[in-house]
Amino acid sequence: MPVDVDALLAGLERGERRALARLLTVIEDGRPDQLRQVVKYLYPRTGAARVLGITGSPGVGKSTLTDAVATRLRAVGRTVAVLAVDPSSPFSGGALLGDRVRMQGHHADHGVFIRSMASRGHLGGLAFATPQAVMVLDAAGFDDVIVETVGVGQSEVEVAANADTTVVALAPGMGDSVQAAKAGILEVADVFVINKADHGGAGKLESELRGMLELGHATAGEDDEVSAWWPPIVRTVAVRGEGVDELTDALTVHADHLDADGGRERQRQVRARAVHAIREIALEQVRLRFVRFERGHDPVLDELADQVVERSLDPYAAADRLLDALEGGEA
Amino acid sequence: MPVDVDALLAGLERGERRALARLLTVIEDGRPDQLRQVVKYLYPRTGAARVLGITGSPGVGKSTLTDAVATRLRAVGRTVAVLAVDPSSPFSGGALLGDRVRMQGHHADHGVFIRSMASRGHLGGLAFATPQAVMVLDAAGFDDVIVETVGVGQSEVEVAANADTTVVALAPGMGDSVQAAKAGILEVADVFVINKADHGGAGKLESELRGMLELGHATAGEDDEVSAWWPPIVRTVAVRGEGVDELTDALTVHADHLDADGGRERQRQVRARAVHAIREIALEQVRLRFVRFERGHDPVLDELADQVVERSLDPYAAADRLLDALEGGEA
Repeated sequence: MPVDVDALLAGLERGERRALARLLTVIEDGRPDQLRQVVKYLYPRTGAARVLGITGSPGVGKSTLTDAVATRLRAVGRTVAVLAVDPSSPFSGGALLGDRVRMQGHHADHGVFIRSMASRGHLGGLAFATPQAVMVLDAAGFDDVIVETVGVGQSEVEVAANADTTVVALAPGMGDSVQAAKAGILEVADVFVINKADHGGAGKLESELRGMLELGHATAGEDDEVSAWWPPIVRTVAVRGEGVDELTDALTVHADHLDADGGRERQRQVRARAVHAIREIALEQVRLRFVRFERGHDPVLDELADQVVERSLDPYAAADRLLDALEGGEA
Repeated sequence: MPVDVDALLAGLERGERRALARLLTVIEDGRPDQLRQVVKYLYPRTGAARVLGITGSPGVGKSTLTDAVATRLRAVGRTVAVLAVDPSSPFSGGALLGDRVRMQGHHADHGVFIRSMASRGHLGGLAFATPQAVMVLDAAGFDDVIVETVGVGQSEVEVAANADTTVVALAPGMGDSVQAAKAGILEVADVFVINKADHGGAGKLESELRGMLELGHATAGEDDEVSAWWPPIVRTVAVRGEGVDELTDALTVHADHLDADGGRERQRQVRARAVHAIREIALEQVRLRFVRFERGHDPVLDELADQVVERSLDPYAAADRLLDALEGGEA
């Protein structure tokens, strides 16, 4: 059954949940023409949602924490969409089962939407697909969009960091502080959470973390923009809802920081997000061209490859011509 | 001290070893203008070398195997360059120490050149840098260029597979066959080596491997191009030089296969390599544009980002314009 994207976009505008879910599937499937159509239509309708990134190593209790934050935000009347990004799963089937389990707590609430997302179909992976899914949820009118992702690699961390406020979750006794420093996860945190704070070692983890933050601040070069923001460290026991109010308070304080000075920091973020979107789409266009070629139909690349093989053109000159041709392209 | 690339290229043409080494450093450093200059000049001078990829999990004895193959090729009068690609090292300092140790066995021999390469400076990583280093070694006149890389990830496997003949090395007792299937390493092998064949389990590994190859052949779809080439499995004990003659014989048989039917398969490979080079360079051009932007000087991207922030342009339209601008660009 072919997808009628126009009908889905109209359905989204009418607030239909089914249209929203199917548009996210369109994003996941990654058909270039459909993605382009969705983004072109929805992009002017975005910008109202607050985007929250939550990341951390496996086992720190991210999904419990996310659910607790979502529940708290609902309690103060905000609508919340959760995008649980699973880079390890090529298909979202398994993750969807998880969604259903997680939805139990919110099943009667139209103000909460939880969705897992895998990266099938995307050459550029999650860094390409996630921002487009966030656009859909933003355009759908949610007050808050929470992007939850495992902080295990550079691109996963980047996905969570491409938010207004990024929460990095740690837990005691997992060697987290050292791992965090390795993954560059410390630099992206606006707020730290030490979850499972009732376990032994929470105090030790917090002091290690403070030490690393001070070290990072002290070693920042003169050229580095040293932010006026020091990420607070909040202790939670998410399974019992402990510390979650303190966490949402910290999120509000960070939002106020973004809005200070006439919103200078927020403008910087909006701009960084725009640049990120342009970059990932441009890279995807280049990758797509090669997929088409491998399938045997790309006359421009075919001709360029011939010339490189004959050595009448060097690969740099060919890449220049390909990039030129991409603009007028049908991709 | 600024690098005089013209002088290095002239030195390379005169066969100067120092110029070769410094050109490889230029490739490693990844300054865009210099890379472009080197490739533009050298590319028409390449195509004579036989490129051999050797990959495998850590601990299978790749470098010992590589050295044994290089020694054997020297014994029959061929000149050999070895490029040991180390994705785990951001700097080549440590690897260079290893080079010196490895050079001991060949220290008086001008027909052997061994160099480690790290990926510093390259946004596109080894998939971008390695083919350019191979061009330098090819243009320098080596009969054989061996690219040795750890087969631990998709891009590392791709680096080794971007060769005339790809050797996948395994060793008994490391759970290798299962790991190999995961990494897509089986598909790229033209020749398999079971190194450390004097250890227990070599027979078991070989029969597992044969089973997987037959399974792969049987499950290939009708659309898949089922190659006429069945990769031979050669057993070696590289530390004692055992089986190395059989391995170099297998390399020759594969080279003959490439040349059969008027060189149809070799032409396909040359073309695949050209396409790979164009793609990686095109992707690098896009990434570079964003690095320049982050450093504060890219008027085109600056203007596009402004328009996306104002929502007068959607990110797809901006990406199109960026790709258009890249061709006329100064990158």
